[in-house]
Amino acid sequence: MLQKGKANCITDVEGVMVGHVTLYEKIDEENTICTGVTAILPHGENLFNKKTRAGSAVINGFGKTAGLIQVDELGLLESPIMLTNTFSVGAVLQGTLQYMMDTTKEIGDTTSTINIVVGECNDSYLNAIRHQAIKPEHAIQAIKNATGDPVEEGAVGAGKGMVCFNYKGGIGTASRVINVEKENYTVGCLVLSNFGKREEALFADFDKIKMDTPDGSIMIIIATDAPLYDRQLKRLAKRCAAGLGRTGSHIDNGSGDIAIAFSTANPYEHHVKTPMQYGNYLRDDHPVMNQLFQAVIETTEVAIINSLKNAETTEGRKGRVVEKAPF
Amino acid sequence: MLQKGKANCITDVEGVMVGHVTLYEKIDEENTICTGVTAILPHGENLFNKKTRAGSAVINGFGKTAGLIQVDELGLLESPIMLTNTFSVGAVLQGTLQYMMDTTKEIGDTTSTINIVVGECNDSYLNAIRHQAIKPEHAIQAIKNATGDPVEEGAVGAGKGMVCFNYKGGIGTASRVINVEKENYTVGCLVLSNFGKREEALFADFDKIKMDTPDGSIMIIIATDAPLYDRQLKRLAKRCAAGLGRTGSHIDNGSGDIAIAFSTANPYEHHVKTPMQYGNYLRDDHPVMNQLFQAVIETTEVAIINSLKNAETTEGRKGRVVEKAPF
Amino acid sequence: MLQKGKANCITDVEGVMVGHVTLYEKIDEENTICTGVTAILPHGENLFNKKTRAGSAVINGFGKTAGLIQVDELGLLESPIMLTNTFSVGAVLQGTLQYMMDTTKEIGDTTSTINIVVGECNDSYLNAIRHQAIKPEHAIQAIKNATGDPVEEGAVGAGKGMVCFNYKGGIGTASRVINVEKENYTVGCLVLSNFGKREEALFADFDKIKMDTPDGSIMIIIATDAPLYDRQLKRLAKRCAAGLGRTGSHIDNGSGDIAIAFSTANPYEHHVKTPMQYGNYLRDDHPVMNQLFQAVIETTEVAIINSLKNAETTEGRKGRVVEKAPF
Amino acid sequence: MLQKGKANCITDVEGVMVGHVTLYEKIDEENTICTGVTAILPHGENLFNKKTRAGSAVINGFGKTAGLIQVDELGLLESPIMLTNTFSVGAVLQGTLQYMMDTTKEIGDTTSTINIVVGECNDSYLNAIRHQAIKPEHAIQAIKNATGDPVEEGAVGAGKGMVCFNYKGGIGTASRVINVEKENYTVGCLVLSNFGKREEALFADFDKIKMDTPDGSIMIIIATDAPLYDRQLKRLAKRCAAGLGRTGSHIDNGSGDIAIAFSTANPYEHHVKTPMQYGNYLRDDHPVMNQLFQAVIETTEVAIINSLKNAETTEGRKGRVVEKAPF
Repeated sequence: MLQKGKANCITDVEGVMVGHVTLYEKIDEENTICTGVTAILPHGENLFNKKTRAGSAVINGFGKTAGLIQVDELGLLESPIMLTNTFSVGAVLQGTLQYMMDTTKEIGDTTSTINIVVGECNDSYLNAIRHQAIKPEHAIQAIKNATGDPVEEGAVGAGKGMVCFNYKGGIGTASRVINVEKENYTVGCLVLSNFGKREEALFADFDKIKMDTPDGSIMIIIATDAPLYDRQLKRLAKRCAAGLGRTGSHIDNGSGDIAIAFSTANPYEHHVKTPMQYGNYLRDDHPVMNQLFQAVIETTEVAIINSLKNAETTEGRKGRVVEKAPF
Repeated sequence: MLQKGKANCITDVEGVMVGHVTLYEKIDEENTICTGVTAILPHGENLFNKKTRAGSAVINGFGKTAGLIQVDELGLLESPIMLTNTFSVGAVLQGTLQYMMDTTKEIGDTTSTINIVVGECNDSYLNAIRHQAIKPEHAIQAIKNATGDPVEEGAVGAGKGMVCFNYKGGIGTASRVINVEKENYTVGCLVLSNFGKREEALFADFDKIKMDTPDGSIMIIIATDAPLYDRQLKRLAKRCAAGLGRTGSHIDNGSGDIAIAFSTANPYEHHVKTPMQYGNYLRDDHPVMNQLFQAVIETTEVAIINSLKNAETTEGRKGRVVEKAPF
Repeated sequence: MLQKGKANCITDVEGVMVGHVTLYEKIDEENTICTGVTAILPHGENLFNKKTRAGSAVINGFGKTAGLIQVDELGLLESPIMLTNTFSVGAVLQGTLQYMMDTTKEIGDTTSTINIVVGECNDSYLNAIRHQAIKPEHAIQAIKNATGDPVEEGAVGAGKGMVCFNYKGGIGTASRVINVEKENYTVGCLVLSNFGKREEALFADFDKIKMDTPDGSIMIIIATDAPLYDRQLKRLAKRCAAGLGRTGSHIDNGSGDIAIAFSTANPYEHHVKTPMQYGNYLRDDHPVMNQLFQAVIETTEVAIINSLKNAETTEGRKGRVVEKAPF
Repeated sequence: MLQKGKANCITDVEGVMVGHVTLYEKIDEENTICTGVTAILPHGENLFNKKTRAGSAVINGFGKTAGLIQVDELGLLESPIMLTNTFSVGAVLQGTLQYMMDTTKEIGDTTSTINIVVGECNDSYLNAIRHQAIKPEHAIQAIKNATGDPVEEGAVGAGKGMVCFNYKGGIGTASRVINVEKENYTVGCLVLSNFGKREEALFADFDKIKMDTPDGSIMIIIATDAPLYDRQLKRLAKRCAAGLGRTGSHIDNGSGDIAIAFSTANPYEHHVKTPMQYGNYLRDDHPVMNQLFQAVIETTEVAIINSLKNAETTEGRKGRVVEKAPF
């Protein structure tokens, strides 16, 4: 196993910031709001003006993530990565757009539009998802809440209502550090875990009670300061499938399992009129690349486990209770 | 050239319905709302309960279309295809979701969530896009407005503020009919045209005045009653690039050029518990397949031309006027 | 864990046949021929005339597999799947083509050409790969050797010179059976294992001696009699990444990790002139699909382990000896 | 239209070399050998040691091109691009491998294996393709024949037996030059044209006689000295579909239409042990990118037309005669 980062957290990658907004309110006998928003910022400056290199992988596409078409075409991320529940993609997209327009007056006026990335999982087992409790301002608040501190895990932010291996899941994170010729590279992972049945788990000896829950999903965000470009970051994103497989997941039909990887190195300025863009990247054939792949796999697995370890027992709609995993 | 459909229109494909909502209002000296929403419905029944086969192609991915990840994974469309401006994807997503929830009580409650498809082009040359004038209810209204009548073209619905070859573009449509062993198959195309410079056009002798407009985009929707499944529909969608190329487009860097094809044959019921699904499909190696490809290419080209022919001169924000193409 | 097939072997899928040709000869002090060919036949009839549904997944594309472009476009397999060493793709392609031409006189004369699928791993640690010892006739012989009997595993056929987790690897296989409404579906997997370092292995407590071997590769072939079509078979192929991840693989940069899945159900006849093709397929949303995914993951993991368990210590070029894994 | 290059030829891109080997021999009444090999070399040095950036696009995948999986994964080309007939992919792969091994002793011995790229079209209308007249040595000879001189077009090399729009097709080429801030960038295209029916052609007024020929294919090779990396080169390759569409092609079912683009800038050395690789690339958002796209579309269209203009009437197997196009 590779060496852990300082806080074993995605914010160990310098500059990366994470913010949560959590909603929890019992409305009536039947309905409970149990959901939230999580924002991951590659850095604390203007994300449109200073874009980051990115790549994605659709491990299983039963999901509604918005914004990946442009990330794939241009290899760039120009917004925070927002996580929320399936039915709040629209509201979070709008709030994030509002935030970016407020802080960048030229978007959609004198310069191009902006591409917002929003990922989601379905928290309808615990959350009254049809109520669409998330409003655009919650997305803005999650972005404003973002800091570089160690990330709160478990039933928080977008993870508030998520269920993983039939236990309480949600937000989890982990990091690894690699030393190469006096350089340190950090790989951080943040997951929104919402998949799996008890009997699938390989990392713990859960009981084998079968519960009738939907197939679920997982969003996996990989951050690194290693100087990689889009094609290489897509390679990192693809390795998340191996980390997910290690936990025991069968990557079920109804599971939207999507990975996005970005690098904080070699930022790409928006307002540049010169034709050329310089870049200095790791070679694919240097041994450090395999270590980066290993780091992605390890942090994906550990972030999932951490999302369970740090989640508390939660009561949601229809009086349903999802328990903390017994480990 | 193949034979035209009855109205040379996407609604020549039986069951297909199209509805527009158009917003046009001068707010102040600087700002004009000049935008809209267009809804394409594969059929008039519940679209979630009776899904349609679909495939997509990203010709150039500088675009923000939502919903294609799941279409690609499952080969199914379970919502209307909604078109609007770039900054209204969130609002239209939300309104369409609301409409589908209102008409299908079990979504997100006792059954799975739903995947909404929203395409867009950037109308910020004429439209005060930062105002986000489109609200969720406009999406709902566009769906309710949908009929099987011949489609209004040009500066209408999502096409209200679009610019194509530096002339007024927007909504265009065309259709072709193919006879195979006593069967008639119809291919219909609807475009939202918003791309190109005057000097690119191959279909008309436009003047060569250079205008400083952004790269633009195009959404291309292909409908057919030919019995095709997802892989085959993706093949159809990919042929749109050839039709686009015929008009003279260079498929510019900043152009989000995206095609979605669906078939009204072999619908896929949601509430089925049996393991098997029957299907009867055209063979790829039958000559009819090449005619379907030809129909896609021809209708794409003609629908683009029709979007210009039927658009009137339009004044938008900052007093900008985009003229009707001189042909 | 799901129930094993009769022989825990890919040939448990009715009709599937496997044949090996193994070459082993010490030429001089430096050079040893230590390689081979393995042929997997979806059924025993003419494979061009009776094609099978297929899909593939490139887990990591540092590989030279030929034939996948057409499999992806048409969703069909029309040749045996051939496995060999990296530098023998040309010879095996030619031999297999010869075999198919000899048994199907109309190919390339009165009907279309044929698409041959050849996968490979790099066995140059043990095999004098530059000698190109494999000739077209070895491919033909491997096809002729194919039977539906339990498959010989380990250092045999294409697996003769392969190295896995720094121990002797090669051919491994496994199968699972799923019961659905009185139907039995079998999933079989055959791997050509040639990847990994000792310290990566999660399934055994190998010593941690570091050896300087190349990154290696793996070919994973999934066979099933479950009625699935191309899109679904691609979903199966993608799950192999999770099975591979479970063994501990980091999916290294230099590893060509490629999965191909085919179904023996719903064959597709070549010489059909009617426009339609009937098909009866499993629904993606039926629980059996998740069991099929589970079967793919389990058989991939177990087939890799079996490739080690059944391989004997082998001496190759330059006097190199690769030991049988100690378990 | 952009400015032509010096010779309107792919070899206008400095360093690029092209070589042909043509086979033509009447064996008996029925059988004529009418085929060949064409080699495109990105530069005249060792192609394995000094790799070039590359990307590809599968416009229609009814084709047997070998080597694209690795090009896509690593974004690099490390061999000549070889063109031949469908049934000679194996022989040409083997010959090219032999050539590369002979000139690079460490391949497959002390360093990794090599990825060979071979594209093909089906010339079986004129050529007795089942005879497999192409031998590995013909590939070696085509490489050795390569020069930077203007390329011979028409019924030569791999183009000897090809048929395009029912007239004699084969090898065609074109180039364009773009000026950016005192820099000149050249885009060159070479096609192997073998597709289309007379009635499809948009660039000439051919008679509409229907001929019963197979669907055919096209290989499109784009070379440039513009400093682009893999993702950008894939964008170039995708634009070939628009150029193909302009000629009138319907991109038929049975057509293997494949584009490969490479840049001679920023070569990638094999024997480097340092972790970093410097690169200086054009920005996607600079106007030159759209001109490069335009150059790809124009040269694709013109190269196809040139392949017809420069091909002579040719007699092939079964006494079939394919005429020179009347323009």
